[in-house]
Amino acid sequence: MANEKKLVEEITSMEVDFTQWYTDVVKKAELMEYSTIKGFMILKPNGYALWENIQKELDARFKDNDVENVYMPMLIPESLLQKEKDHVEGFAPEVAWVTHGGLNELPERLCIRPTSETLFCDLYKNIVHSHRDLPKIYNQWCSVVRWEKTTRPFLRSSEFLWQEGHTAHATAEEAQEETIRMLNVYSKFCEDVLAIPVVKGQKTDKEKFAGAEATYTIEALMHDGKALQSGTSHNFGDGFAKAFGIQYADKDNKLQYVHQTSWGVSTRLIGAIIMVHGDDSGLVLPPRVAPVQTVVIPIQQKKEGVLEGAEEIKKTLKAAGLRVSLDERDKSPGWKFAEAEMRGVPVRVEIGPRDLAEGKCVLVRRDTREKLVVEIANVAEEVSKLLEQIHNDMFARAKAHLEAHISDAFTYDEFKDAVENKPGFIRAMWCGDEACELKIKEDTTATSRCMPFEQEKISDVCVCCGKPAHKLVYWGKAY
Amino acid sequence: MANEKKLVEEITSMEVDFTQWYTDVVKKAELMEYSTIKGFMILKPNGYALWENIQKELDARFKDNDVENVYMPMLIPESLLQKEKDHVEGFAPEVAWVTHGGLNELPERLCIRPTSETLFCDLYKNIVHSHRDLPKIYNQWCSVVRWEKTTRPFLRSSEFLWQEGHTAHATAEEAQEETIRMLNVYSKFCEDVLAIPVVKGQKTDKEKFAGAEATYTIEALMHDGKALQSGTSHNFGDGFAKAFGIQYADKDNKLQYVHQTSWGVSTRLIGAIIMVHGDDSGLVLPPRVAPVQTVVIPIQQKKEGVLEGAEEIKKTLKAAGLRVSLDERDKSPGWKFAEAEMRGVPVRVEIGPRDLAEGKCVLVRRDTREKLVVEIANVAEEVSKLLEQIHNDMFARAKAHLEAHISDAFTYDEFKDAVENKPGFIRAMWCGDEACELKIKEDTTATSRCMPFEQEKISDVCVCCGKPAHKLVYWGKAY
Repeated sequence: MANEKKLVEEITSMEVDFTQWYTDVVKKAELMEYSTIKGFMILKPNGYALWENIQKELDARFKDNDVENVYMPMLIPESLLQKEKDHVEGFAPEVAWVTHGGLNELPERLCIRPTSETLFCDLYKNIVHSHRDLPKIYNQWCSVVRWEKTTRPFLRSSEFLWQEGHTAHATAEEAQEETIRMLNVYSKFCEDVLAIPVVKGQKTDKEKFAGAEATYTIEALMHDGKALQSGTSHNFGDGFAKAFGIQYADKDNKLQYVHQTSWGVSTRLIGAIIMVHGDDSGLVLPPRVAPVQTVVIPIQQKKEGVLEGAEEIKKTLKAAGLRVSLDERDKSPGWKFAEAEMRGVPVRVEIGPRDLAEGKCVLVRRDTREKLVVEIANVAEEVSKLLEQIHNDMFARAKAHLEAHISDAFTYDEFKDAVENKPGFIRAMWCGDEACELKIKEDTTATSRCMPFEQEKISDVCVCCGKPAHKLVYWGKAY
Repeated sequence: MANEKKLVEEITSMEVDFTQWYTDVVKKAELMEYSTIKGFMILKPNGYALWENIQKELDARFKDNDVENVYMPMLIPESLLQKEKDHVEGFAPEVAWVTHGGLNELPERLCIRPTSETLFCDLYKNIVHSHRDLPKIYNQWCSVVRWEKTTRPFLRSSEFLWQEGHTAHATAEEAQEETIRMLNVYSKFCEDVLAIPVVKGQKTDKEKFAGAEATYTIEALMHDGKALQSGTSHNFGDGFAKAFGIQYADKDNKLQYVHQTSWGVSTRLIGAIIMVHGDDSGLVLPPRVAPVQTVVIPIQQKKEGVLEGAEEIKKTLKAAGLRVSLDERDKSPGWKFAEAEMRGVPVRVEIGPRDLAEGKCVLVRRDTREKLVVEIANVAEEVSKLLEQIHNDMFARAKAHLEAHISDAFTYDEFKDAVENKPGFIRAMWCGDEACELKIKEDTTATSRCMPFEQEKISDVCVCCGKPAHKLVYWGKAY
C-alpha cells in the first residue's frame, strides 16, 4: 500500500517548500493544466466544478440582493477605454490588443476586456434617463485578460474567470451602501461557504482600483502567513459618470450624475481554498463547494455483496441530496484513499464484507482523518451531520490560524522583525503618507493590505516615519 | 387603455415585415442592446435570464450523459489553428487577431477562439495516453468571436455565447454513437424544453463543418417559413487526431489514433424561440425557460386588501417552485398587461377587489389569451397545470406549422415554384453532386438543410439535373 499511496502522494511537503507544494497540489489534484500560451491555464473538470459551485452559491446570494445578470461584449474600443484618465493609465499597459478582424486591419484597435467599467458606462449612458431607471444593479460572469508577466495558477494568470458587478445609483449615499453591502456578501460567502475568515477594510489610495474613489477589500490569510486579496468592492462616486456623461433627470427634472460601484471575485478564490485548507496529502475542500462531498470506497470489492452494498449506500446518499461518487475501479483501497485525499473529498465512506454483515460502515473525515463507525441505516443523516461539522471545524481552525498570525508593531524595528519572523498580518499605525507605504514595501516587501473597518489607535505615531498617525493598517506580504 | 397599450405595442406586424417585427421584438422585450462595436451585442437581463435557463436545463442533460465541464483559454496561437488544413481554411478568414500584449508586439499572432477544436486537441494530445484515459467527454460554456459582415441579434453576431462539447474515443463506432447521442440530446431539449420541433439529419459535404467527416444538424422552422440551423454535432473521425498526433496505447499496447466529435448550440436558440412562438404582441416564451413564468397583476391596486391579496398569491406561487413576479408599479393594468405580453410571460394572474371578495382570480394565457377563473385556494396547482398545458399546446402548434410547411418537389419547376410560393422545407431528391447544390442556391437562394435520418425515395432522379438520385434532402431558405 505504501507504494500505491506514493503514486498519488508524491508532492512536496508544505513545510519544505510551500510554493512547490502549491504547484504540486494543483497538478496532482487535476485542477488545471498549463496551455500552449504562457500565462493561460486550462481549468480541468475538478477545478471547473469547484468554480461552478462557487458560482451557484454566490449567484443565489446576488439574486437575493436584486442583482441582474447580463453579458457585455468582450472587446473594448481604444477610445472608450481612454475616457476615464486614471482607469486607462491603470489598465492600458496590460491589455491584449486586437488589430485585425478576419483579413482586414481594424480602423481602431480593440482590447480584450481587462474589466468592463467602460462598457457598462457606455450602456448606462444610453439606458439611464430618469430617476425611475435607477438603481441599475447588473453583473456578469465572464473571463477577462490582463497581460501578466509572472503568473501562477489561480493566483495570477493572463486570463481568468470572474464576476464583475457594475451598479448605478441616484445618490452618493446609495452607492456607498451598495459598495459595502456587496463587500459583506463576499465576506459572508467566504465564511459560510468556503470556511475562510477574512479581514475587511478599505484600501489606501495607493492600492485602490484605477478610477475608484474608494476600494474595499476582503483579505484572507494563507497557511504560509501571506495575505491573499480575495474580493474587492469599489465606490466610483460620480467620476466615471462625468467622464462618460451618465445623467438622469431627478424628481424635480434636474439633470444629475449617477454614482457608481463595481465589485468582483475571481477563480483566485480557488487559490485561497487550496492555501487556507490544504495539507501535505493534498486538497481539503470545504464541504459546501466540494464537487464530490463524499466518496464510497468498497473494501474487498470482489467479495459477494460488497459492490451492491456500496451502490446502495451511494444511492441513499444521493437521494439525500449529497454530491456523491462510488469508486468501483479495479484499484486497491489504499490507492483510492490517497486519490480521494489528494482531491480533498470531505468524507469517505468505507464499506467491506465485515461492515456489511454488521450493518455498519466507516466514515473518515478528510480534514482530521478521524474515523467514525455508523449504522448503514443512518448513513445519510450521519454524513450530512459530519459535513456540517467539518465546515464548522475548518472555519474554526482557519480563524484560529488567522488570529494567531496577527501581530502588533509599534516601532519600525519591531515592524521589520515581524515581517521577517512572524508570518501573518502586522497591525501598525500609519501617518497617511504614500511615501511611508513605498518605503515599507521597499524595505520589507510587505504592503498595506487594508485599513480595517474596526479601527483602534494602538499608538500615536506612524510605524515608519514617527509622525502623528490616525490610521490603523493591516500590513503583510501578499500574493 | 388603447393608448397605454400602444406604449409597449408599437411593433411592426409580422405579416407586414417579419424582419422588422423581429428587430422590434428583441428591442421592445429588452432582450438585447447594440454595443459600440458593430456586430457585438449586449445581452440585457431579460435576454440573459433566458440563456441562463437554457444553460441550466441543457447542462443537467449533459451531466446525465457523463459530460464534464472545463474551461479552455480564449486565445489560440496561429500555428495551432493551422494544424488541421480544412479547419484553418474554414475559420482563418473570420477570426479576430491579437497582435499586442500590453505594450509589446507578440512573437506570434493569437486569434480569439472562433471554436476550440484545436485547443482541445492540444490538451488531449497531452493527457490521453492509454485506452484507460478514454473516453474524454468535455464541454465548455463560453463566448466565441467570428468576424461577421452582416449581423442580426441572436442569429448572427460577431461574438456569441455557446457551449462546445469536444470528445475523444477509442473507436470510430463510439465516436459515431456519441455524435448521434448528443444530437438527440439537442433535439429532445428543443422539443421538451423550448417546445420547438426539429428536423434531424446529416449535412451534405458542402455544408459540413470545416474539418469534420460528417456533420449532423437539427433544423427548426421559423414562423416565416425559413429554416434555422439550431444545433450541430460533428464526427471528426481520426482527422484531427492525425493532424495533432493524439494517440493511445490499446489493450495490446499498440498505438492507435483517437476518434473525435464536437457539438454545440448557442444563443441562436433565443432567436428560434422568438421566431417560432412570437406573435404581433411580442414574445411568447416556452414556460420551461421563461425567466418569469407567471406575473401577478393587481387590478385597482389602491383599494384595500388588493395588494396584500396579490402578494399572498405571489408567495403561494413562489412556494410552489414557480418563477413569479408581482407588478405593483404605479401604472395602469392595461399597460402592465401589454408589457407582460411583450415579454412573453406565459400566464398572468389578475386579481381585483371583486375577485378577492369571491376568493377567485383570473388566469390569462399568453399564447391563446384564453381566460380562466380559478379559486385562489388552488392557484398554484392551476397555474402549474396551465403552464404544462401551454407547453404542450405551443409544441403542438409549432409541430402543425412545421408539418404544414413541408412540400415535395419532383421537377425543377416545381422546386422553383415551391421556393417562391410555399415557404418552408422542400423535400426533393438529390444526385449527390455539389454542382446541383450550387445551382439550386444560385437559382433560388434555397440551400440543402439536411439529409433526414428517415430517408424515403420519393423519385428516382435528382430534382435539379435529372440524373439518378438516392438521397432525399430537405431544402429551404435559411437564416
